Amino acid sequence: MNKLFNSAVRVKILALLYGMECCEFGYLKERLKLTDGNLEHHLNKLENYELITQKKTVIRNKLKTEVKITKKGKDEFKNYLEEILRLSKSE
Amino acid sequence: MNKLFNSAVRVKILALLYGMECCEFGYLKERLKLTDGNLEHHLNKLENYELITQKKTVIRNKLKTEVKITKKGKDEFKNYLEEILRLSKSE
Repeated sequence: MNKLFNSAVRVKILALLYGMECCEFGYLKERLKLTDGNLEHHLNKLENYELITQKKTVIRNKLKTEVKITKKGKDEFKNYLEEILRLSKSE
Repeated sequence: MNKLFNSAVRVKILALLYGMECCEFGYLKERLKLTDGNLEHHLNKLENYELITQKKTVIRNKLKTEVKITKKGKDEFKNYLEEILRLSKSE
């Protein structure tokens, strides 16, 4: 299992993006109750591993970051979730 | 969310115990493909937070460790899983 899942925050970010495909930085921040710095740190990690992409644009002097999950990100999250679910249903 | 979930191994241990209630050290080790030291380390962490209990007995000169999930452990794992599932179903 990917070391990226050694962080509950990253798991939650991927979970949210898995359901939404893409969303804005501000939405993620609010929904997951994170600080700018913390969210940025984890998004950069996820981007380095090609699980998400970030597209930054400036609109009316304000930076807007659109975050999107990649195919690889979806697959990795799906595998993680399926493994946890499978284990939790053991007999 | 508990910092204990900042480890994919601990999440998997809890998932397995959630489904089985209790099992032996050797079974956990084999099922999750962990070394003795690694499993011991994570079990001790989970025990310190009262999410599991460990009962050690000696049978025919062999140490046997029975690992059991606590009520708190079940609740914490259930909350974690439900949060991930809820986030991944966002619209």
